[in-house]
Amino acid sequence: MPISRQVAESLGRASWIRRMSDEARALRAERGAGEVFDFSLGNPDLEPPQAFGEALSRVAADPARGTHGYMPNLGYPEVREAVARRASRDQGLEIPAGLVAMSAGAAGGLNVVLKTILDPGDEVLAFRPYFAEYLFYVQNFGGAFVPVDSSPGFRPDPEALRAALSPRTACLILNSPNNPTGRVYGRESLAAVAEVLEEQGRRTGRMPYLVADEPYREIAYRGVEVPSPMLAYPETIVVSSWSKSLSLPGERIGYVAVSPRCAEPKAIVEGLAFSTRVLGFVNAPALMQRTVAGLLDQRADVASYERRGGRLARGLREAGYEFEEPEGAFYLFVRVPERAAPAPADPRGPDVAFAMHLKERGLIAVPGVGFGCPGYFRLSYCVSEATIEGSLPRFAEALESWRRAG
Amino acid sequence: MPISRQVAESLGRASWIRRMSDEARALRAERGAGEVFDFSLGNPDLEPPQAFGEALSRVAADPARGTHGYMPNLGYPEVREAVARRASRDQGLEIPAGLVAMSAGAAGGLNVVLKTILDPGDEVLAFRPYFAEYLFYVQNFGGAFVPVDSSPGFRPDPEALRAALSPRTACLILNSPNNPTGRVYGRESLAAVAEVLEEQGRRTGRMPYLVADEPYREIAYRGVEVPSPMLAYPETIVVSSWSKSLSLPGERIGYVAVSPRCAEPKAIVEGLAFSTRVLGFVNAPALMQRTVAGLLDQRADVASYERRGGRLARGLREAGYEFEEPEGAFYLFVRVPERAAPAPADPRGPDVAFAMHLKERGLIAVPGVGFGCPGYFRLSYCVSEATIEGSLPRFAEALESWRRAG
Repeated sequence: MPISRQVAESLGRASWIRRMSDEARALRAERGAGEVFDFSLGNPDLEPPQAFGEALSRVAADPARGTHGYMPNLGYPEVREAVARRASRDQGLEIPAGLVAMSAGAAGGLNVVLKTILDPGDEVLAFRPYFAEYLFYVQNFGGAFVPVDSSPGFRPDPEALRAALSPRTACLILNSPNNPTGRVYGRESLAAVAEVLEEQGRRTGRMPYLVADEPYREIAYRGVEVPSPMLAYPETIVVSSWSKSLSLPGERIGYVAVSPRCAEPKAIVEGLAFSTRVLGFVNAPALMQRTVAGLLDQRADVASYERRGGRLARGLREAGYEFEEPEGAFYLFVRVPERAAPAPADPRGPDVAFAMHLKERGLIAVPGVGFGCPGYFRLSYCVSEATIEGSLPRFAEALESWRRAG
Repeated sequence: MPISRQVAESLGRASWIRRMSDEARALRAERGAGEVFDFSLGNPDLEPPQAFGEALSRVAADPARGTHGYMPNLGYPEVREAVARRASRDQGLEIPAGLVAMSAGAAGGLNVVLKTILDPGDEVLAFRPYFAEYLFYVQNFGGAFVPVDSSPGFRPDPEALRAALSPRTACLILNSPNNPTGRVYGRESLAAVAEVLEEQGRRTGRMPYLVADEPYREIAYRGVEVPSPMLAYPETIVVSSWSKSLSLPGERIGYVAVSPRCAEPKAIVEGLAFSTRVLGFVNAPALMQRTVAGLLDQRADVASYERRGGRLARGLREAGYEFEEPEGAFYLFVRVPERAAPAPADPRGPDVAFAMHLKERGLIAVPGVGFGCPGYFRLSYCVSEATIEGSLPRFAEALESWRRAG
């Protein structure tokens, strides 16, 4: 075996997002780009705001000595100050700069958090459907990933959460606005989650952390509030990034903020510094730290996601598809339609079967099994309006032919 | 326990480099900066070359769409092409672009490599003295770190290597030019190492990888050749960065190159892509990839390290200190002097005792125990010439008083 068994096995089970994106590429080569409508990747397609280019050029031209050198593992003190002020506003409570760690995006931040809090065998919970990478992040540190069923409408289910908790539960990862459902968890949902976690803490003496994965916080639709997990539950660690809000996913810049209401916030932050160092991040990229620090009130034209999502949702609804109304992020999580007459069960599962049915029509979606939820498929609408318009008649036809074929 | 046991224990054993750097800071506050001569940190103090600023400004001003977006986990294809050409020249054999992975510095690259090749319980070897972070990198993936004694003069000892190998040996990390000794391993050393590893492969069927950690390749002194590990041994993976050669340690940009002579190079590269993704790096920072790609023949004024190292070495030699002549990097690894008369053993160890003796005189060095070699101390000479000149009379006095006190 030239490589680690775990890595080799994981490679054998390539992610569904990746697989469908590869299918799209193959199909484009076969039929031409105009015949393929690719909703597979959650890849922000907006340009950064104009202020970003200006800030970047300014920082790039800064002749000060040492601007590309090492800084403390947690980041530049002045950048942490600025980010703490912004995070305090988002979270509705005062977060000192000392509780902020700059990270290589949210993915880097989540790995640093999990390395810091997990002992081997510890359990990490997340509601279905979930971002499939969580599973690998947890595996990196010898943890066990435990999916928890959601309520109808893809809200956190407090009873399912209670049943999934154990003395080995280290944390619950809560992702809102949610990938893949587009749901934003409201205050009541957070309160219900907090109540169950607190009860667990009282009973076992181990208060699970709430790890709030918030890279989509800035992409919530008009009128939808993204409430503060830190106000809902004391043992909260927020992970976020500028990948979506400033449309910089390739630059790997984000942060972790530890709630001042945690029982031992300083121990956590010391752990984050250590984990940032020894995982080889060492620090978040210097230039991007200094660039985003001046752009904390800027964002890319994220309203365009709402427009595009609205158009796609309206078209699919008219065609007869069923899904929860999107509230943020840039995904629709759609129910696999019923057949008109009972059909023999497809061995691939209904979601994979339907995704392949869509693919025959040039429509690329990701089966729900990739998020722990067969019976659904995900559409990412970071695509052009032309792609959306062009796809709608095909989606309508796909639904009709699927029903008839039953 | 608010954080992982392993992390908490590691925090309790703060690195000696960090501890001595903290001592320096405290001493500066107490006595004033002019009274402290801090040789603790291996922090490149040169500015990047002028061409870097120009390239960065050009890339920063590039109005092309998507330049801050995602790219494949292994990096931009054109950047990998350029890096492959340069690495081919360094290594003396043709490395296809498909065998290059862009990484977040050498520390990120090493973590990605170790995640890719280690099964839990696998062993990772390194010659003493070693860069202490290796230990944590290996621990991240459940590996066991096995230090191997060097020959006198800090060359790889083939017999010690043979004795340390086991069926669980996944790799040997070889760091040349070396931190902390400043030694460059010549062709004969590499050939001797290769012979032992190949013999192990033939005997056990498991050929250990040679992981060549080469961030200091560009900092070798005039007349000293840094030979190619890829030419010496087939199963070689090179990890490097631009942190030292372009003086960009805060920007986190480096690469991994897999030898085309490996039995299964493609499996390794697929593993590197996966590990880059799931460790949360996702990709090396986009902007820096594009910036360094145009600077592969540039370097910071690394000759100044040679000048400074030469001056420090001459001064210390005249004072009576003993060490191997530096051949590269920017460190001296100096023997703790003997006492004139037998003294009771210091419970802290001779290196810690001598480092504290130096500290009383405002001289900050790192005890060798921090590199697995008590009996020595490390001086990093990324410091000003004034610091070197000012330190020499104090080093001379420290040696005299240490001897007398014996």
